[in-house]
Amino acid sequence: MATDQARSEHHGETYEQFEGRIARIANVGNAAGVLRWDQEVVMPESGTPARAQQLSALSSISHELLTADETGDLLEELESAALDDGQRAVVREIRRQYDRETSVPRELVEEISETTANAHPTWKRAREDDDFEAFAPTLEKLVELKREYAHHIDPDADPYAVLFADYEPYIDLETAERVLERLREELVPLIDAIQDADADLATDTFAGEFDDDDQEALARDVLDELGYDWERGRLDTAPHPFSSGTQFDARVTTRFEEDDLLGSLTSTVHEFGHANYTLGLPDDEYGTPLGEARDLSVHESQSRLWENHVGRSRPFWERFLPTVADRFPGLEGATPEAAYEAANQVYDDNLIRVEADELTYHLHIVIRFEIERALIAGDLEVSEVPDVWNDKYEEYLGVRPETDAEGCLQDIHWSHGSFGYFPTYSLGSVLSAQLYAAAEDELGDLDEDIRAGEFDELNGWLRENVHRHGKRYTTPELIERATGEELAADSFLEYATSKYGELYDLEAY
Amino acid sequence: MATDQARSEHHGETYEQFEGRIARIANVGNAAGVLRWDQEVVMPESGTPARAQQLSALSSISHELLTADETGDLLEELESAALDDGQRAVVREIRRQYDRETSVPRELVEEISETTANAHPTWKRAREDDDFEAFAPTLEKLVELKREYAHHIDPDADPYAVLFADYEPYIDLETAERVLERLREELVPLIDAIQDADADLATDTFAGEFDDDDQEALARDVLDELGYDWERGRLDTAPHPFSSGTQFDARVTTRFEEDDLLGSLTSTVHEFGHANYTLGLPDDEYGTPLGEARDLSVHESQSRLWENHVGRSRPFWERFLPTVADRFPGLEGATPEAAYEAANQVYDDNLIRVEADELTYHLHIVIRFEIERALIAGDLEVSEVPDVWNDKYEEYLGVRPETDAEGCLQDIHWSHGSFGYFPTYSLGSVLSAQLYAAAEDELGDLDEDIRAGEFDELNGWLRENVHRHGKRYTTPELIERATGEELAADSFLEYATSKYGELYDLEAY
Repeated sequence: MATDQARSEHHGETYEQFEGRIARIANVGNAAGVLRWDQEVVMPESGTPARAQQLSALSSISHELLTADETGDLLEELESAALDDGQRAVVREIRRQYDRETSVPRELVEEISETTANAHPTWKRAREDDDFEAFAPTLEKLVELKREYAHHIDPDADPYAVLFADYEPYIDLETAERVLERLREELVPLIDAIQDADADLATDTFAGEFDDDDQEALARDVLDELGYDWERGRLDTAPHPFSSGTQFDARVTTRFEEDDLLGSLTSTVHEFGHANYTLGLPDDEYGTPLGEARDLSVHESQSRLWENHVGRSRPFWERFLPTVADRFPGLEGATPEAAYEAANQVYDDNLIRVEADELTYHLHIVIRFEIERALIAGDLEVSEVPDVWNDKYEEYLGVRPETDAEGCLQDIHWSHGSFGYFPTYSLGSVLSAQLYAAAEDELGDLDEDIRAGEFDELNGWLRENVHRHGKRYTTPELIERATGEELAADSFLEYATSKYGELYDLEAY
Repeated sequence: MATDQARSEHHGETYEQFEGRIARIANVGNAAGVLRWDQEVVMPESGTPARAQQLSALSSISHELLTADETGDLLEELESAALDDGQRAVVREIRRQYDRETSVPRELVEEISETTANAHPTWKRAREDDDFEAFAPTLEKLVELKREYAHHIDPDADPYAVLFADYEPYIDLETAERVLERLREELVPLIDAIQDADADLATDTFAGEFDDDDQEALARDVLDELGYDWERGRLDTAPHPFSSGTQFDARVTTRFEEDDLLGSLTSTVHEFGHANYTLGLPDDEYGTPLGEARDLSVHESQSRLWENHVGRSRPFWERFLPTVADRFPGLEGATPEAAYEAANQVYDDNLIRVEADELTYHLHIVIRFEIERALIAGDLEVSEVPDVWNDKYEEYLGVRPETDAEGCLQDIHWSHGSFGYFPTYSLGSVLSAQLYAAAEDELGDLDEDIRAGEFDELNGWLRENVHRHGKRYTTPELIERATGEELAADSFLEYATSKYGELYDLEAY
């Protein structure tokens, strides 16, 4: 007994030491988050060279702390110790990061980092000049470096699966692929049917010019309406809206364009979903993985749930349109139904992912997924990308890009070397439908709540079933516990066919 | 020869390694600066607990990097190497920090840090309740801890001199004392004479209520006027205005109070002076002491130069009053002379340091200096502070505080344990007069330039003689090179007697 107790006390000390170490890593990471927020939102442009050095110093420090022998020793000792469930989850998460970061040589990490730093301006110029060939050598180099990177982590695995796991560590690639294939199979005919339908939706409800200051006031209205906790957050603008922070301070950014009121509102609600997840993480686990959000798909499920299932719903517009009209009296004549229709218009000629509706969006993702997978597998040459891209757009979406600028050069992701990132957008969206359905199963239909501007029940359910767990469970465990199911496209497809079948009056749906 | 060359190459590598190490420390420090700016300016209040942890992690990392054996070994090796002047200065600066930080036990640093963290709310409450006794035990503890701290650094030195050197490493305490005594001796009778004079200055020129947004627009006007580089900075508000950043991004904060337009303008010009110094540091020395500002007195000389010698000058008001009147049409009838008088009013009943004019200000400092010096020396008990404070106010300023809240509890500094900080305010002011006189010696009278809103010559002189050197020279060297003199009160006293003699029509001056 005495020996057991002594061992357990020793483990207690070891765990404390381990916790101090990972808290430091987390704090350095969160400090870097503040620096990035500052850079995107308030930093004068000339601050860039110093900021790059500051971020690089923090990133090196974090890497060195994580990959130090002390971390490895502590992990090993704790893996054979008697820990509680939370501690075991913490050790699991850090082990995973440790193994990945220690397996890639630092020189390769630096080469990737340098190459992507230079890739960004090259890509930007290539897009401006509609000149894919100017970007092609960089893209080739990045494909090669990322293949090498994946090989270091797991020489026996499909390299694309390894890269995908950087963004989504616990969902296996087969599951992701199954979901994306299913989306393609079901959405292509649904979108076809919509395009063939003779529907007369109110698409110009929000046409007009809208003052920035009034748009900002309205963005604050919508955040008030959804219950954003201003004591732990703030709203600013950024060219590419994002949300960042911790459970103590989770900020939203959005953008205002004079002729795109709906786009600004959608972006605000989307980013609210991200920040709201962060704000639901447990305070007392700050500095450990239990106080950190699960990965990209779960994060995206939160933003999409609020953006689509709440913000694009009929009861939301019944509730919220009068507030919009208060800010913009020109909209006083609009009906909630017309607002609902405008917010859910399915485009038949849109080439641009970030402007897509919630159905065609997934086909944009499927195309990128198929292409980047083939690139990493070596089944596709970089030089073939533009043609394959355009062919797929024609096949899946019935529209062919006339330039690469509005084709395969449109996204920033590949210039970051982020192969494997795109699928998480669709997986998150699919998951949001599963979570929303599970919430309604438990709480009953939520339309009345939304119509009353009452979001406490829904948010309470999300806090209880998703937010408060942090990284305690792996993603499949978290999904299973919250929904009783595996990640799958069914809920989303049910939601989509029912909603759009009604909206476009489709016979077959 | 070959051996020499090999040695020199080896030193080159050592220096490079050293430079990498100190650049990392500087970057961590600058990252912390961004976090503090964020905390003061934009952070929601609930962010405090996480921010405290982030800052504490960065501070520990920085301390560990600086005090590591590797730093000591590199310093030792470089101190016997053939280095150029700039490198030698860098080594000198880091050696000084290294020696100080390695001589104080980490536990003591942590105890001080914990005590001051708790002292701040205690002081704040004591001030609100006008209850010095509630703060006294904390103050005693801080005096004791700081004495112990000084003893670790140099057991043979006057502990106050050691503490002073934390803020002003190269000006010896005797010099500081000589300057402050001289200020007291000369300013007490000058202020007496002013109070006895029968002058009828226009003191209510800026009486009235001024809208925040218009004040902000005017603050931007004044920064435009002075030539603030907006591409490398920004203006925000903070409860206690400050300026922070690097040569790539040096930001100004200010405050707006409805009934204090002059206070806001003064604060803006003052902080401009600080930021403008930072912006004059050499870009290519970023990350080394040569790219960092000299210490508090030199920094304060820059803010005071712009605040007092420019911003409180007659030609400045001749130039700038129309701009003020453009923003506030109520001031259209005011004359530049009336603005000049209001900006230079010497108060005869002010108890509050931060509201003091440029003459009485120094007596506020002298009082604090005398008291904190006696406290640290053990010549004064904490319990005696209120009486001694009030007596000195009566003696030097002819006004006696009726409460400790407007007496010895008014400043935040002692709750930070910052004994030795106050003198740098007066030293900076004295230095600003020396620098301004030296600039006029070389450039000729600057009144015409100011009246024309032409600040390039003055700023060019400051860039050339102060800013661009960073920490290359010690403070006395820098002052000697820029002004041909030692730090002394003469220039300031000449400026003060001439300006206020004329303004108040004093016979003896």
